[in-house]
Amino acid sequence: MDKVLLDYGSGGRASQRIINDLFFRHLGNDILARMDDAAVLSVKGPIAMSTDSFVVDPVFFPGGDIGSLAVHGTVNDVSMMGARPLFLTCGFILEEGLPMADLERIVASMGEAARKAGVRIVAGDTKVVPKGAADKIFINTAGIGEIRVDPAPSGHRAAVGDAVLISGSMGDHGLAILSTREGLSFDAPVVSDSASLAGMVSRLLEGLPDVHVLRDPTRGGLATTLNEIAGQSGVGIELTEDAIPVDPAVAGGCAVLGLDPLYLANEGKCICIVPGGDAEAALEILRSDPLGGKAAIVGRVVDDHPGKVAMITPLGGKRLLGMLEGEQLPRIC
Amino acid sequence: MDKVLLDYGSGGRASQRIINDLFFRHLGNDILARMDDAAVLSVKGPIAMSTDSFVVDPVFFPGGDIGSLAVHGTVNDVSMMGARPLFLTCGFILEEGLPMADLERIVASMGEAARKAGVRIVAGDTKVVPKGAADKIFINTAGIGEIRVDPAPSGHRAAVGDAVLISGSMGDHGLAILSTREGLSFDAPVVSDSASLAGMVSRLLEGLPDVHVLRDPTRGGLATTLNEIAGQSGVGIELTEDAIPVDPAVAGGCAVLGLDPLYLANEGKCICIVPGGDAEAALEILRSDPLGGKAAIVGRVVDDHPGKVAMITPLGGKRLLGMLEGEQLPRIC
Repeated sequence: MDKVLLDYGSGGRASQRIINDLFFRHLGNDILARMDDAAVLSVKGPIAMSTDSFVVDPVFFPGGDIGSLAVHGTVNDVSMMGARPLFLTCGFILEEGLPMADLERIVASMGEAARKAGVRIVAGDTKVVPKGAADKIFINTAGIGEIRVDPAPSGHRAAVGDAVLISGSMGDHGLAILSTREGLSFDAPVVSDSASLAGMVSRLLEGLPDVHVLRDPTRGGLATTLNEIAGQSGVGIELTEDAIPVDPAVAGGCAVLGLDPLYLANEGKCICIVPGGDAEAALEILRSDPLGGKAAIVGRVVDDHPGKVAMITPLGGKRLLGMLEGEQLPRIC
Repeated sequence: MDKVLLDYGSGGRASQRIINDLFFRHLGNDILARMDDAAVLSVKGPIAMSTDSFVVDPVFFPGGDIGSLAVHGTVNDVSMMGARPLFLTCGFILEEGLPMADLERIVASMGEAARKAGVRIVAGDTKVVPKGAADKIFINTAGIGEIRVDPAPSGHRAAVGDAVLISGSMGDHGLAILSTREGLSFDAPVVSDSASLAGMVSRLLEGLPDVHVLRDPTRGGLATTLNEIAGQSGVGIELTEDAIPVDPAVAGGCAVLGLDPLYLANEGKCICIVPGGDAEAALEILRSDPLGGKAAIVGRVVDDHPGKVAMITPLGGKRLLGMLEGEQLPRIC
């Protein structure tokens, strides 16, 4: 069959075929192959657990697709608690008529992303809805990992005097999705940064166990995520505009479209808040990682304006950077 | 606002409002309230982990709704490994324009189902897609629980001589959904059996730690699930048709519609396979449970026809009961 049929989600023989022929081939491992109602896992607590659903449109985009994105999104959320991501579940909602070739490409991409991130997909579920009841494919992943530092990094732990770092340039994923969806092309290609941060976080915590906050600035972008942290920790955050890396193609595209890269989603970057004295050491570790070449110290935690984020402009002015209001961009992830 | 808007899924201020005003009010607990990228959980391994996505149509039906169903489905999958379900994640995919009153009713129902089942919802995600890109609401849940028996029950452990029990009547959920969707009414109301099996399983394993198989016959029904177990364990299963409880209203509705209740989904029943000598003890424990009043010994594990399920008819004939072929009923859960 070259298209997804309703009975692939029936739980009967057709479901078994798609599980054996497609899902096991790309995602298979000893645990998944048990095919019981739940996977049996050996873990040492405490653990971190997270979930995300992915509805990105288009499903294929420069730098990735909904399959790899669904792995990276949850792997990164788990990593942000100082945990080593180990196990993922995945739930597919498929629209009747989805080309099997697209599904296979997506599942293969999930499998590759999982292997690279060092996680195993241990349980799954597939539903098929009639044509028109969903748009092509939605994927949910949930994941768990073992937390390796105590206390774990948390948005509640930013402290006055801490340095704020980011691991790379801002806005790449958001602009890549928007430009693909709208058929826009810029002078230079804009490519999603979708990637697993598990390795980078692991190396960072080996060198610096006392990282106060790790957070990946996905929906709402850097500005919104820092506002959340400022609120959770009851501190102010001050950014230096000049210090924030933005890819020239992203900056150019944002200028044309009237978007602010600080509010665009990233899918392979993290915010890292460390004691001020550890800032240079953290920067060095981030920069030594293949994903962290453009890491930068972009600000500091202050006791002024608690709960708010301020930006020092290149001319020395200071303005507040609020949370995202309204929806810049639906179906970004 | 009386309808779900796109920016409720933006990750920005509107997302925060719906999280605080709606999700926390019904699902809140100390862990969820941390609002970090992942929940930090204390667990003792080994654990069971499972996931299911729910796309049931209609979202409200006699005996439940998509919210309570999403809790029961994953709670039951985790319970089937002999585990005590502890933590759930939930991912919502909402269609723009969904009435907020419907969403609130669903989320409240999830909260109540979670409290009854003894689980906490510790992480969540909300996406909103434009009108027409999804049908009202889809919910994914993933869950983990601590396994309390060793070895855990498994579809691979059915052994010749074992007894096959079910905890109640077959087909209630499937027929309740179908009759609601099609606007059919029968002489007696047909009500979904959607319920948490966590308590029943807990009591069963306290009394009989050596349960070989636990499995909930959801999509594909009893017949398909027993075929899976027969295949996994490499044994035959022989059922006695007379012994299988089917509610008269369900039997009547199935006769009218040409459906077989043994292939219809259940959402609050379990198959329980135990050593033959433990059959009566298992039956007594199941029947003493509020959900198990109609529990019955319905068959046995045999060395004939390995991988297949046979049915002894009331007249003493014997026929093979295959897996579900084709889709009896899409969007049943």
